Amino acid sequence: MRDFSGDTALISLNTATVQAQWTLEQCIEGCARHGIGGIAPWRDKLAECGAGRAAAMIRDAGLRVSGLCRGGMFPAATPAGRQAALDDNRRAVDDAAAIGAECLILVVGGLPEGSKNIAGARAQVRDGIAALLEHSRAAGMPLAIEPLHPMYAADRACVNTLKQANDLCDALGSGVGVAVDVYHVWWDPDLEAEIARAGAASRILGFHVCDWLVPTTDLLLDRGMMGDGVIDIPKIRGWVEAAGYDGASEVEIFSKDNWWRRDADEVLATCVQRHQTAV
Amino acid sequence: MRDFSGDTALISLNTATVQAQWTLEQCIEGCARHGIGGIAPWRDKLAECGAGRAAAMIRDAGLRVSGLCRGGMFPAATPAGRQAALDDNRRAVDDAAAIGAECLILVVGGLPEGSKNIAGARAQVRDGIAALLEHSRAAGMPLAIEPLHPMYAADRACVNTLKQANDLCDALGSGVGVAVDVYHVWWDPDLEAEIARAGAASRILGFHVCDWLVPTTDLLLDRGMMGDGVIDIPKIRGWVEAAGYDGASEVEIFSKDNWWRRDADEVLATCVQRHQTAV
Repeated sequence: MRDFSGDTALISLNTATVQAQWTLEQCIEGCARHGIGGIAPWRDKLAECGAGRAAAMIRDAGLRVSGLCRGGMFPAATPAGRQAALDDNRRAVDDAAAIGAECLILVVGGLPEGSKNIAGARAQVRDGIAALLEHSRAAGMPLAIEPLHPMYAADRACVNTLKQANDLCDALGSGVGVAVDVYHVWWDPDLEAEIARAGAASRILGFHVCDWLVPTTDLLLDRGMMGDGVIDIPKIRGWVEAAGYDGASEVEIFSKDNWWRRDADEVLATCVQRHQTAV
Repeated sequence: MRDFSGDTALISLNTATVQAQWTLEQCIEGCARHGIGGIAPWRDKLAECGAGRAAAMIRDAGLRVSGLCRGGMFPAATPAGRQAALDDNRRAVDDAAAIGAECLILVVGGLPEGSKNIAGARAQVRDGIAALLEHSRAAGMPLAIEPLHPMYAADRACVNTLKQANDLCDALGSGVGVAVDVYHVWWDPDLEAEIARAGAASRILGFHVCDWLVPTTDLLLDRGMMGDGVIDIPKIRGWVEAAGYDGASEVEIFSKDNWWRRDADEVLATCVQRHQTAV
């Protein structure tokens, strides 16, 4: 397992971590200031900045782009809705390519409006990714399916375990892999085995960290800083690295009542410190 | 699949559904008033009433007791804590027997204070149930392992899928089964297969219903009335009945901002109506 105790280069800042405080430009400058080696923009921040300008700034700062957040949201109630999702995903692939992202993160989407058919939503996800693959393969942009915690099954992602993501990858072929976010998968009894399975297929495209707080006061916006919760992050990182992953450790913390209210430089300094001690 | 469209006998009222409004005595009288055939008390309500008095009232009302909520909470940081949990579970078995419950529901517990070792907590759960079995078998009281949604893995139950519960049952032998609560398991891609597996072993001891709301505003206390959310309850009931389950449909709704604020007779009338149309 890699020694992170003195490292800052292998940390990547997901812009969601300071989304309330900073623009993408400020995030890039902040990473440079703190020695953080990577960045993972969200598309709204990227759109504000402009992909061309962002690409130049990121290159000048010498940052890796561990991923672009996000494509996905495939299921829709109508064919027109599904086509709109596919079109938007193609633009996301282009955005990811423009900034040299290592992958496009897919938050696959939940149930279409009014639907109770989760098996149908899962089929729509499979079909949506399959339809996107021609474009993403041509762009050389890997798609990273991120299984989301089951508490998001209805409204954000109906792929809820790494086993599901692995099964999808098996079905879809080349150009698609997985992102392992400890927040979403830490509870899964099959996690170690499914990480090994993903690694054997060389498909682990991202490793995201934060922590699960007890109590958790909000389903979406109460994630914890690494070390402040109950996830054994080093154990999971050990599994991921044993499976061959050698990329960045991307910090993605949605925290409306805590980290989003703090000075962003304090947040980045804390991310670095915890990356060295709790990841 | 059984026809519930004119039924009230196969509904069971979990007292949590009106916990803010009614005592156990009032729940028993309410069930009789609405023709509801069963009840599932929580232990705090049972203790207020007294087990002997509750048993007599339930018998006089002709109610089945679909389960007693709850035993469990096995993991603890110290041997003394684990012993205290075991002692309390033995008392829960005795309470369940005293009121003629069909099973004792087990909410198995999460991580011990200060622990990040979920595999260790799961081992403590297995050992705790194993230690309880001599007493529960002697009392003729089946133990129903209820897998809880993964969002409760840290603080309520580290058994989070029906597969885990089935694996535990396989390991523990006779006297232990599972409870299937749609709220906890609806998202699980392996649900149909694991229900069939549980049925093949004749171990489905309970079927609990409510609904998953979108959005869900609280991790614990924002469950929905059947039909108000996104769970395809009839589909899951079909799987459970195809697997041989012929017991009650137990309504358990924690809802601090909605159903707990309404007149309890209105809540029961709604439960009956939805039992007939949305379950």
